[in-house]
Amino acid sequence: MMAAFPESPIPASSVVGQLRAACASDWTAYTQHAFVAQVAAGTLPERNFRHYLVQDYLFLIQFARAYALAVYKADRLAEMREAAAAVTALLQTEMQLHVDYCAKWGLDEQDMIATPESRATLAYTRYVLEAGMAGDLLDLLVALSPCACGYGEIGARMIADPATKLADNPYRAWIELYGGEEFQQVSRNAVTQIDRVAEQRLGSDPAASPRWSGLVAIFRNATRLEADFWQMGLDLTA
Amino acid sequence: MMAAFPESPIPASSVVGQLRAACASDWTAYTQHAFVAQVAAGTLPERNFRHYLVQDYLFLIQFARAYALAVYKADRLAEMREAAAAVTALLQTEMQLHVDYCAKWGLDEQDMIATPESRATLAYTRYVLEAGMAGDLLDLLVALSPCACGYGEIGARMIADPATKLADNPYRAWIELYGGEEFQQVSRNAVTQIDRVAEQRLGSDPAASPRWSGLVAIFRNATRLEADFWQMGLDLTA
Amino acid sequence: MMAAFPESPIPASSVVGQLRAACASDWTAYTQHAFVAQVAAGTLPERNFRHYLVQDYLFLIQFARAYALAVYKADRLAEMREAAAAVTALLQTEMQLHVDYCAKWGLDEQDMIATPESRATLAYTRYVLEAGMAGDLLDLLVALSPCACGYGEIGARMIADPATKLADNPYRAWIELYGGEEFQQVSRNAVTQIDRVAEQRLGSDPAASPRWSGLVAIFRNATRLEADFWQMGLDLTA
Amino acid sequence: MMAAFPESPIPASSVVGQLRAACASDWTAYTQHAFVAQVAAGTLPERNFRHYLVQDYLFLIQFARAYALAVYKADRLAEMREAAAAVTALLQTEMQLHVDYCAKWGLDEQDMIATPESRATLAYTRYVLEAGMAGDLLDLLVALSPCACGYGEIGARMIADPATKLADNPYRAWIELYGGEEFQQVSRNAVTQIDRVAEQRLGSDPAASPRWSGLVAIFRNATRLEADFWQMGLDLTA
Repeated sequence: MMAAFPESPIPASSVVGQLRAACASDWTAYTQHAFVAQVAAGTLPERNFRHYLVQDYLFLIQFARAYALAVYKADRLAEMREAAAAVTALLQTEMQLHVDYCAKWGLDEQDMIATPESRATLAYTRYVLEAGMAGDLLDLLVALSPCACGYGEIGARMIADPATKLADNPYRAWIELYGGEEFQQVSRNAVTQIDRVAEQRLGSDPAASPRWSGLVAIFRNATRLEADFWQMGLDLTA
Repeated sequence: MMAAFPESPIPASSVVGQLRAACASDWTAYTQHAFVAQVAAGTLPERNFRHYLVQDYLFLIQFARAYALAVYKADRLAEMREAAAAVTALLQTEMQLHVDYCAKWGLDEQDMIATPESRATLAYTRYVLEAGMAGDLLDLLVALSPCACGYGEIGARMIADPATKLADNPYRAWIELYGGEEFQQVSRNAVTQIDRVAEQRLGSDPAASPRWSGLVAIFRNATRLEADFWQMGLDLTA
Repeated sequence: MMAAFPESPIPASSVVGQLRAACASDWTAYTQHAFVAQVAAGTLPERNFRHYLVQDYLFLIQFARAYALAVYKADRLAEMREAAAAVTALLQTEMQLHVDYCAKWGLDEQDMIATPESRATLAYTRYVLEAGMAGDLLDLLVALSPCACGYGEIGARMIADPATKLADNPYRAWIELYGGEEFQQVSRNAVTQIDRVAEQRLGSDPAASPRWSGLVAIFRNATRLEADFWQMGLDLTA
Repeated sequence: MMAAFPESPIPASSVVGQLRAACASDWTAYTQHAFVAQVAAGTLPERNFRHYLVQDYLFLIQFARAYALAVYKADRLAEMREAAAAVTALLQTEMQLHVDYCAKWGLDEQDMIATPESRATLAYTRYVLEAGMAGDLLDLLVALSPCACGYGEIGARMIADPATKLADNPYRAWIELYGGEEFQQVSRNAVTQIDRVAEQRLGSDPAASPRWSGLVAIFRNATRLEADFWQMGLDLTA
């Protein structure tokens, strides 16, 4: 086993690393999507980025709900507190950063909140919420991981990749956010929490559990729906 | 107010009729979608219909879960029993009819169950389930209504429309199923149940309730996701 | 390992049998409660039995909701169908039998439905529903098992025990219901379903899973709350 | 209409005030329970208070889950943020205060967390969680209000009542916590949030809504289960 690349916050031996390996082509289609490549190159048209930003704002609201569901689903204080910290970080810090950042792109919070969720936003967020409600905490965290861990891997690759253009790249702040140490730590923590919860619920070899194929299916669906989210940004679809 | 057309199982004055009026263009895009028109004309290519049938089978499983959720959400025996009857009808009668019907199109149940859900299937079904879990019984029934009532309206229009071709139409059985009296009654019952639950929860003028705009949003989203489901059939998308 | 007694519908080697062994004193306190002994002896005062019957009616409504939740939680058609059959059996057959039976004790359905749930009824039913919602299908089925399987064991013991008085026992019909072959089969099916779902989710040795202690805790809580339900009947508490 | 007493954080005209009026005898039985009176008089035996404190610790964990559920259930950012602040306050500040306070009574956090929940704790907390899951945000907030608002009223009455003994009262810190301005504000905020959410969902006269009797039933059940919680402290029941 090897990591996707040395700088990824997802070690190959982690549960998320094993899920990534089980969905390799879907993972590549998501993490190396044309939208991502155009952000790294600074060539993505602004209106595509703005379309994405508005939907990402609506997405963050649903992800705060999903982490709140994780607090509800957790049966240990440590997991409750970790999920609660994510809720607070999303609702307070991250959404405000997002709003400030969007303001620089001419997007107003009231306009964003009044925008209907696109199909891609609905599809991804409701899938995660519902998989988590129907299943247990582990199902929920796995459904969240392509976002929580994948954005970290995307950011780390952009920073590590010599082809990435930072100078005069209009998306430099976005790249430095997700590639920066603070978000890398968020991703590593998500990886670690899933390792911990998987051990609590499946034992020391999660991939040997009869639930493994079900977890792979959740991870694959969520990964594909993340790729659709990028595609929505490229296609400007509602 | 007027009904969409006289034979529709959705009276204009019903809650569903009022929701339909509030989302008129989305409703038309769904109920008069090109997929539907090609079914009525008998011109839809078979592989599109088969693609749809497989996903519709996977859809029925999720809809059985949604009606089970309605049993859980109901706080009156009458509503519990009506929803439970839908669960049983879906899991016993309808899925078996579907399987028998699919067999005539060369589709095997084990193959269907092994087929991954398409994005359109995931998006629609998880949206309904999640709207129902987050909200109350009325939110759930409204999310279900574009399917439960809309298929009845589509079937009724096909039967009523002189342009519909029945003779030598490969989809005749499908048209006669949804246009037939038995399914029309299913749709009328769904309309009536929503009127009843809306009165129990919102009073005698649901459209005057502060919740109305939220219910319209759910109805619109579900209607749009139903249209996407037809489009998935046309586009053969996974 | 040995069964509680040869006629019990719960084999010692089953998952429920192992849970029973892990909570032996709580299980005995529930299944051999004074209320049960007085029913078997025919000495329970009628007003205690009537108090129990009314709350049991309210309990059945909540149990129908719990089995509906099991349909929602299931990820295989076979488990969905088994749970759906329980919903239908509860809402159609069992509640009607209960109403007919209660009528003989002078209890009217409208009066029963208007009676507030006692604390014991609230405590047990909401615990089951919530454990099932927070956890997965296995957590839910385990929470249901002290009722679904325990009543079978209680009935089987009554029938097997030479001390049980059937002649002139005012509770003979109740004893023959739960001790009869039909309900014994219901209990055996519940035992078997839990074995099956445990294998699907935990593998071939559920007691070796890291989740085992959590399942024991759910089983113990539900068993204690069942014993409280008998005590409520004895104490006539609201 | 008049408030229970001038200093109560629950105005008579608020939704919670109207629910209180609809359940007056249950509310009095809860807020003026013998346990409360003995705390105010400083006569409660220490072991009863310690028994209560341990269960209250376990209760706070479940209440954090309930407020997390409120974040999930909310459909407006303002309500999500208010509920998220409660989750954080409970999991960070309040539980730590509780642990520090319990340490002074010789109670160790690890011992508390290893203590089984009493029936009264199970009954109350699961009732709240389940009412909230089955219903909407308003149902959940109403189920939470006897705690969130009632403790404030109890504290305010203790402070206002000349019969309360503060000097040499071993429970003085407890009285000053719940009677103090900080917690009074928590209670007033809970009252205000329910007014706001009730208006969003039921309009300007919630008591005229067809849902009113259902909300009264939830409030009454939760109030009775709170009274049982005090009784558990007096009776030292497991």
